[in-house]
Amino acid sequence: MARVITPRKEDYAQWYVDVVLNAELADYAPVKGCMVIRPNGYGIWENMQRALDQMFKDTGHSNAYFPLLIPESFMKREAEHIEGFSPECAVVTIGGGKKLEEPLYLRPTSETIIWSMYRKWIQSYRDLPLLLNQWANIVRWEMRTRLFLRTTEFLWQEGHTAHATHKEAEQEALLILDVYRRFAEEYMAMPVLIGRKTEKEKFPGALITYCIEALMQDGKSLQAGTSHDLGQNFAKAFDVTYLSKEGTQELVWATSWGVSTRLVGGLVMTHGDDGGLVIPPRLAPQLVVVVPIYRTEEQKQGVLEAARRLVDGFPPSWRCVVDDRDTAKPGRKFTEWELKGVPIRVELGPRDLENGEVVLARRDIREKIQVPMDRAAEEIELLAERIQKNLFESAKKFRDEHTYVAHTWGEFEELFKTGSGFVWAHWCGDSTVEEEIKEKTKATIRLIPMEGEEEPGSCIFSGRPSTRRVLFAKAY
Amino acid sequence: MARVITPRKEDYAQWYVDVVLNAELADYAPVKGCMVIRPNGYGIWENMQRALDQMFKDTGHSNAYFPLLIPESFMKREAEHIEGFSPECAVVTIGGGKKLEEPLYLRPTSETIIWSMYRKWIQSYRDLPLLLNQWANIVRWEMRTRLFLRTTEFLWQEGHTAHATHKEAEQEALLILDVYRRFAEEYMAMPVLIGRKTEKEKFPGALITYCIEALMQDGKSLQAGTSHDLGQNFAKAFDVTYLSKEGTQELVWATSWGVSTRLVGGLVMTHGDDGGLVIPPRLAPQLVVVVPIYRTEEQKQGVLEAARRLVDGFPPSWRCVVDDRDTAKPGRKFTEWELKGVPIRVELGPRDLENGEVVLARRDIREKIQVPMDRAAEEIELLAERIQKNLFESAKKFRDEHTYVAHTWGEFEELFKTGSGFVWAHWCGDSTVEEEIKEKTKATIRLIPMEGEEEPGSCIFSGRPSTRRVLFAKAY
Repeated sequence: MARVITPRKEDYAQWYVDVVLNAELADYAPVKGCMVIRPNGYGIWENMQRALDQMFKDTGHSNAYFPLLIPESFMKREAEHIEGFSPECAVVTIGGGKKLEEPLYLRPTSETIIWSMYRKWIQSYRDLPLLLNQWANIVRWEMRTRLFLRTTEFLWQEGHTAHATHKEAEQEALLILDVYRRFAEEYMAMPVLIGRKTEKEKFPGALITYCIEALMQDGKSLQAGTSHDLGQNFAKAFDVTYLSKEGTQELVWATSWGVSTRLVGGLVMTHGDDGGLVIPPRLAPQLVVVVPIYRTEEQKQGVLEAARRLVDGFPPSWRCVVDDRDTAKPGRKFTEWELKGVPIRVELGPRDLENGEVVLARRDIREKIQVPMDRAAEEIELLAERIQKNLFESAKKFRDEHTYVAHTWGEFEELFKTGSGFVWAHWCGDSTVEEEIKEKTKATIRLIPMEGEEEPGSCIFSGRPSTRRVLFAKAY
Repeated sequence: MARVITPRKEDYAQWYVDVVLNAELADYAPVKGCMVIRPNGYGIWENMQRALDQMFKDTGHSNAYFPLLIPESFMKREAEHIEGFSPECAVVTIGGGKKLEEPLYLRPTSETIIWSMYRKWIQSYRDLPLLLNQWANIVRWEMRTRLFLRTTEFLWQEGHTAHATHKEAEQEALLILDVYRRFAEEYMAMPVLIGRKTEKEKFPGALITYCIEALMQDGKSLQAGTSHDLGQNFAKAFDVTYLSKEGTQELVWATSWGVSTRLVGGLVMTHGDDGGLVIPPRLAPQLVVVVPIYRTEEQKQGVLEAARRLVDGFPPSWRCVVDDRDTAKPGRKFTEWELKGVPIRVELGPRDLENGEVVLARRDIREKIQVPMDRAAEEIELLAERIQKNLFESAKKFRDEHTYVAHTWGEFEELFKTGSGFVWAHWCGDSTVEEEIKEKTKATIRLIPMEGEEEPGSCIFSGRPSTRRVLFAKAY
C-alpha cells in the first residue's frame, strides 16, 4: 500500500492505473489482455448487477444461460456480424484431446447461439415477446490490457428479446436505453447523454444502435451501454418465424443490449481524484469505516470498545469494519481508506468519547462534521445521500463545463488540438466525412441525438446541409 | 406442452430427461455436450446462488473473478492435476486471427491461474488467510450430454483459500463441507452423507477430498459437492510462500471447494415424481400460482377480479401469477403447473368466492385444503414450511429404506445385481480391490465416513482387516 498515485494532470492514463491497482480493484493476469477482478472491484460489480438485475426483472425480463462455445458456421450466418467480430475471436480447435471437426468460437456476443435456440422455442404469437437476459463472460481478443476498459475477457449482461412487430422491438430497445440511463445516473452518479450511433459505429448486424455516453475527466467519452434494434437480421439468418393470430408465418423482430464491467472503469474515471478511488454510496461494497484514535493502552481499550458498540448498531449491509490494526497509525489508515474510495470515515478518539460524539469525514470533499454518537447511524444515512447527490452534480458540472459547440472547422480542430471534451457540431451524414474528421482530429461521432432536436445548419467539414448537430469526442 | 412423462419405473433416465424438458429447465445446445439453461432452471440456480453466497459471506469469504483462459504451462505445473484434467480440456489455439504461441486451456477448474496470482498477493502472515470465491463457467469435454448432470460447460462456484497452517486449512475445508451439508438439507431438502473420498476418487492435486453424497430415486448416488484440503501442492507448484511472524519464509496451505449446476439435477431426481418436477419452496422461483375457475363470462369477471386482488396482497418474492389464459381449461392448467413443480396452487371458483374461501393444492402430496380468503397469505406461508419439511423427510425415509449393510460378498453382489442403493461394507483400503469391486458390480466407494465411527471387521472382497465400513453405491 506504499504506492503513490500519479496526479491526473501529469498523466491521466497512469493515474487511472494507479487508482485501480492501489484500490485493489483489479490486477493484470498472466495471459496477455486478461485481468483479474479483485474483491474490492468485484464488490462494486456485484452491486451494479443487483441493481440492474432488479430493473430488468421489474420490466418483465428473466435470466437464462446460453453456451460459451459457438460453432463457426453460426457466426458466419449473418454477414455483417461475422465481418465485425471475426478479427477479435478466440477459437477452440482441440477438445477432449482431439482436433475438432468444426472450430468453436468463444462468444464475442451471443446473438447467433441464442437465435439458433429461439428458432426452436418460438412457434406462435403466444410465445412472444420473449424477454431474456444473461450474465456471462465474453471474449474479444485484445493485445493491450486497459483494466476494466478493454480486456480480452470481460463480464457483462446481454439481453436478447424477440417480438411480433418492429414497433414493439423499437420500444424495447428504447425502454432498456432508459434503464441504462437511470442506472448510470441514479446509481453510478454518472450523467450520460443518449442517442443513436452512426452507420459506421453501430453494432455489426443491427439496424440501429442506441447508446449512453459519459464524459470522463480527461475529456474523453466512454460508451457505457448500448441497446440495439436488430430488425429481422438474426430472424432471417436463423429462420425464426411465428404463426400470427391471422394464421400467417411472419419473421420475428429482435433487440439486444448490454453493459459490462467496463462500467467499473467509468465509475473510477468519473469520480476518482488524486487521493484515489471515490465510490458513490449506492454502489459502495463498504459504506463506512471506523478508525479509532488513541495513544495509551488505556485509551485504546475504551475507544475500541465504543467503536465496536457503534458498529454493532449499523445495518449489516454497510459492511462497516473497525480498523483496529496496530501496524498502522491513524493518518496512514486515513490515506489507505481514501485510496479504496470508502464514502464515509468515522473517527473516534478519547475526547470524542468523553463528549459522546464522533467525527464523520466525507470521501468526496474535504469536510468533517461532528455528530452525537447516538445519532451516528441516521447522520451517516443522510450524509450518504448528500454524497451521492454531490457526486452526480459535480460530474454534471464538469461535463457542462467541457461541452462545446463548434461553428467552424477551425474552432472544431482547435478544440480537439488543445484539449478534449464533448463537441456538438453539424455533420452531413456522410461516412467518408466522418472518417476524414476522425483521421484529422481523432474525434468520432459518439451519438446522433434523439428526434425532436433538429436545427438546420451546414456540415462542419463538408459544408453540406445538416439537419442537426451530432456529438463528437475522442473515445475510450 | 403436450409431451408425456415416462413413468420412473419404466425408464428412470428417460423420466429425468422428460421432466427437465417439460418443466423447461434446460434444452440441448447445438454443440455436442452443451446445454442451455432456460429461465425456469436458471431461476432455481439463482436461488441456490443467493443462499450459498450469503453463507459464504457469513463465513468471511469475498467474491472475485479470475480469467477463463489458462496458459498450458500453468496446467502442467502440478503433475497429478494435469494428468487428471488434461484429457477433458478444451484448448484455444487461435486468437485475434493468429495462431497462438502457447495454447490456452479453458478452465476445467481454477487452482493454477488463482495460485499464480496468490504468489503476487501473499507476502506476509498479514495477508492470510485469503478467503476467495468465484462464480464462473467451467469447461470439461463431454461427448454425451446429461442435462445438468454432465455437460461440457457448466456453472459453478469455486472457493480458493490460502492459510498459514495446515490446521487452519483443514478447518476451512470442513467448515465448507458443513455449509454444503446445511445448504443441501435446509434449502434443497436433500439429505446427504458426509465423508472423504478414497485416493482413487479424490481431486487431482488434493491431499484429502471431502464430499457430500445424496441418494437419488433410482438408487444411484450423486456427488453433490466437494471440499479439498490441497496441502501445499499448489503453493509448491507456484512457489507461494509467506513471511511468518517469526521471520521465516513458509509455504502456504490451501483449500478449494465447489458446487455446480449439477445440484439442479440433484433437486429434480430427489423430489420429482411421475407428474413432473417438484421444487422445494425455499428454492422455488415461483412459490404460488392462482388458477381461476369459471364457466360463464359473468363468473369469469368476478373470479378474475378476486384472484388479482388476492395476488396483490402476496409478497412480490413469491412471484405469484394468475393463470388467466383462455386457451386452456383448468385441468390442463393444473397439469402444466404440476410439470413445472410450482409448490402451491390456489384454486378459486364462483362457489369459493361466495364462501370467501380459496383452495390450496400442494404439489408434493395429493392434498387440498380450504382456507378463508383473507387468511390465504398466512396459510400459504405455513403450508410452504410444511411442504419443505415433508420433502426432506420423504427423501430421508427413501434413503433409509434404500440403505443396506452387506456382510458377505454374496450379499454385496446381490444388492447391486437386483437393485441399487447405499451399501455399507468393510474395505481393506487397497485401491486394486476398490477397482475390482467396481469392475464386478459397477459400485464405487462414495465416501469413507468421518472419524469416530470405527468398527473393526474384514474386507468384503479381500477378507483383509478393515477399521470401518465405507459407503458403496453406483454413481452419477
